[in-house]
Amino acid sequence: MANQFFQNNGPYNISEILHILNLKNLKVKKKNIKIFDVKDLLSAGENDISFFHTKNYENIAKDTKASFCITSNNLKHILPKTCTPLVVKNVLLSISKVTEKFYPSSINDKFDQTVLQIEDTKFKKKVIFGKNVLIGKNVSIGSDCYIGHNSIIEKNVSIGDNCLIGSNVIIKNTIIKSNVKILDNCIIGKHGFGFFPLKNNNQRYPHIGIVIIEDNCEIGCNSTIDRGSMSNTVIGKNTYLDNQIHVAHNVKIGENSIIAGQVGIAGSSVIGNNVKVGGQAGISGHLKIGDNVEIGGGSGVIKNIPESSKVMGYPAKSIRNFIKENK
Amino acid sequence: MANQFFQNNGPYNISEILHILNLKNLKVKKKNIKIFDVKDLLSAGENDISFFHTKNYENIAKDTKASFCITSNNLKHILPKTCTPLVVKNVLLSISKVTEKFYPSSINDKFDQTVLQIEDTKFKKKVIFGKNVLIGKNVSIGSDCYIGHNSIIEKNVSIGDNCLIGSNVIIKNTIIKSNVKILDNCIIGKHGFGFFPLKNNNQRYPHIGIVIIEDNCEIGCNSTIDRGSMSNTVIGKNTYLDNQIHVAHNVKIGENSIIAGQVGIAGSSVIGNNVKVGGQAGISGHLKIGDNVEIGGGSGVIKNIPESSKVMGYPAKSIRNFIKENK
Amino acid sequence: MANQFFQNNGPYNISEILHILNLKNLKVKKKNIKIFDVKDLLSAGENDISFFHTKNYENIAKDTKASFCITSNNLKHILPKTCTPLVVKNVLLSISKVTEKFYPSSINDKFDQTVLQIEDTKFKKKVIFGKNVLIGKNVSIGSDCYIGHNSIIEKNVSIGDNCLIGSNVIIKNTIIKSNVKILDNCIIGKHGFGFFPLKNNNQRYPHIGIVIIEDNCEIGCNSTIDRGSMSNTVIGKNTYLDNQIHVAHNVKIGENSIIAGQVGIAGSSVIGNNVKVGGQAGISGHLKIGDNVEIGGGSGVIKNIPESSKVMGYPAKSIRNFIKENK
Repeated sequence: MANQFFQNNGPYNISEILHILNLKNLKVKKKNIKIFDVKDLLSAGENDISFFHTKNYENIAKDTKASFCITSNNLKHILPKTCTPLVVKNVLLSISKVTEKFYPSSINDKFDQTVLQIEDTKFKKKVIFGKNVLIGKNVSIGSDCYIGHNSIIEKNVSIGDNCLIGSNVIIKNTIIKSNVKILDNCIIGKHGFGFFPLKNNNQRYPHIGIVIIEDNCEIGCNSTIDRGSMSNTVIGKNTYLDNQIHVAHNVKIGENSIIAGQVGIAGSSVIGNNVKVGGQAGISGHLKIGDNVEIGGGSGVIKNIPESSKVMGYPAKSIRNFIKENK
Repeated sequence: MANQFFQNNGPYNISEILHILNLKNLKVKKKNIKIFDVKDLLSAGENDISFFHTKNYENIAKDTKASFCITSNNLKHILPKTCTPLVVKNVLLSISKVTEKFYPSSINDKFDQTVLQIEDTKFKKKVIFGKNVLIGKNVSIGSDCYIGHNSIIEKNVSIGDNCLIGSNVIIKNTIIKSNVKILDNCIIGKHGFGFFPLKNNNQRYPHIGIVIIEDNCEIGCNSTIDRGSMSNTVIGKNTYLDNQIHVAHNVKIGENSIIAGQVGIAGSSVIGNNVKVGGQAGISGHLKIGDNVEIGGGSGVIKNIPESSKVMGYPAKSIRNFIKENK
Repeated sequence: MANQFFQNNGPYNISEILHILNLKNLKVKKKNIKIFDVKDLLSAGENDISFFHTKNYENIAKDTKASFCITSNNLKHILPKTCTPLVVKNVLLSISKVTEKFYPSSINDKFDQTVLQIEDTKFKKKVIFGKNVLIGKNVSIGSDCYIGHNSIIEKNVSIGDNCLIGSNVIIKNTIIKSNVKILDNCIIGKHGFGFFPLKNNNQRYPHIGIVIIEDNCEIGCNSTIDRGSMSNTVIGKNTYLDNQIHVAHNVKIGENSIIAGQVGIAGSSVIGNNVKVGGQAGISGHLKIGDNVEIGGGSGVIKNIPESSKVMGYPAKSIRNFIKENK
């Protein structure tokens, strides 16, 4: 799951990981084997640790290459013999703790201490910039870009050509393609609202996904686009967002979509291409909105919407029914 | 439609304009006639170009003084003989391209590169200001004003007497009268969410309107008020807006109105005097809300509301019916 | 009602106060008696002025120790003989004017002119800070705190240990306990949306309450939490708020609660412990939401919700009924 944004502090001996999981007494063959990364069941290799928390992934689990896998008692038998099951009560909380060990900077979103005034960077001549612009380490910016006053581009962020970044903008953990406009006061790429609610002290889980904004997009003022936890948050090509929009972690929006002011899209929902969403509409988490869908202003969408539908209302229903019922 | 905020790059020879419209083969009598401005049918003079896209303006169109008028095939016969029709498929897209030619800075809202630290301007002694305050060219500010830290007053903005501008505020293309308070993090005067949705590359249309905020208003934190496209966005005297409100382009709000937190008002709607809007209510575009109307919190208003009505619900209906139906 | 944040400009002779109330011809025994503070009926001493505007406080009013009490003609007879009634038409407007006399800085929220660059304060070595951080007079900050770029901590604010303050944050009139995270662009502690709507020139009332954020809280990006008018706004221990949330003045939220994105809570409502509020829900003012309540996303809550209920809809009803009616 690694990428340019989050430093992997590994490898760690498996014994260190067992310690975190309160499994230090578990007997494993090679106490000193080194674990290099946390990966999903499919992409994990023999030097990685993985996790398996729902039978949905049964087919992938039985062929995983991971040497160790955090899982539950009722799933452990599915794993291959080459994979040592690490049985815990709460798989997601446990993998979260291990991921935090590898990627501690993905938890707390401390401000970027590597930034310099843009005048003191190589972008001094390349970018047209305002006052008090701050640029982090390893940032890349294409040609013909503008960055407004007081904006902060944190470390490793990548911005394409012909982009307009407004004033008071904060961008972190994000890849922006070309011809993109990010308007004033946007916050792009902070962690999502994801945590384990524990009495007196919630446990945040790591967000090692990023935000990707494709070519020709526009993001309106005061909008927030959170980065993904395990996958990425994506805004498709030529999609326009109005002001004060909130896009939560792991959301994917397709191409050529139009999202009006104050819309909120909850975590992990997938919005298609050519979708129109009216002002103040809300879309619940983990939903699929098909291509060419139109959602009326103020709607509350709480179930999947098939492609080419027009819906409105709270809960959102076909716009024909909405109008009929509200004559 | 010109004003102090958008520089008119004209005049242009009519041949240059025909080129933009893909009408370069059209035969016009004087290829070298100079066109000075883009104006509506009523205010255009013989050196201006205008546009005529809907029969609603028939009466004005037949008397226009414009020498050239962008229009459609079925409307061209209405124009007087003194006016050469320029027939196109999409009148609004075409006038947008011509307007962009005259007023290129009205499209993209690049940050103001003319700003100086306020200490380096004539306002050093006149205004009470915080750290890192930036002031653009030709700004005017009245007496007894405060401007908080990191705020940006872009070029040509005019602010009256006794105004309080908070911190992290951005104001552009705006005229603020006296005794106005603009609270922290507001963005006033950027272009609206107006564009022609084109596959793969939307075409923004020019916003050459401004924002006018009359005497004694208060605008809450994190609010956005977009400037108009062809007309202005206006907040009437002694109207108060709470936090996180979005006012879209061309909206007019009357006097003594009270708008609670997180309300959104879509483009071109007109709100009367003494109107009260409860928190999180939404008002669709192009509506007319009469004087003395009360709109309950959370309402979704999708049709005109006659004066002195009390409405609530989504869609908003008379509050009596809303309560009866929801007992 | 005084606290560390608002300077008491008193004492004032009672004659000065009578002047404000348009009662300068009222005969009182000692024209030169000094009044030291404005207090509620219970806590006022003989050197204070109080106010009595509703029969609900009858029992407290008859025993008040205040020497003077602003009240109405129909309530004055309830006050004890030691208390001189000051009879006015509008008790709340009058007490507001008197409170403004004592605490003028509580009205207009001018930006803090006492701030210094953090490098020029005692926090230079104690805090890990970004560029352009401003700190007001008498601020206190605990150990192991981070403050991001361009953030402003105004005078008298108190921050505990292990806090993360993001970038572009503005905090005023607030006490923050330990292990709290305030994310980018938040505005904490400005006055609420409270005023007397007067034709042509609304009269703001003083906000001498503060914001208190208890241990282990997280406040999402672009959120606004207004301070109280007469009481405080409180966010309980380990309560998490997502992005773009608005918490109005005098609201109290309990412990271990979870508030999703774009929620709005209107003035003076009290939310219990372990409450979950879905995205974009709105809660009207002066309501009581019990412990362990769950409010579905998009709901509009307009009446009290008893503890351990699950509600959804607009207006919010039991979630069972909401689902049944919307099958």
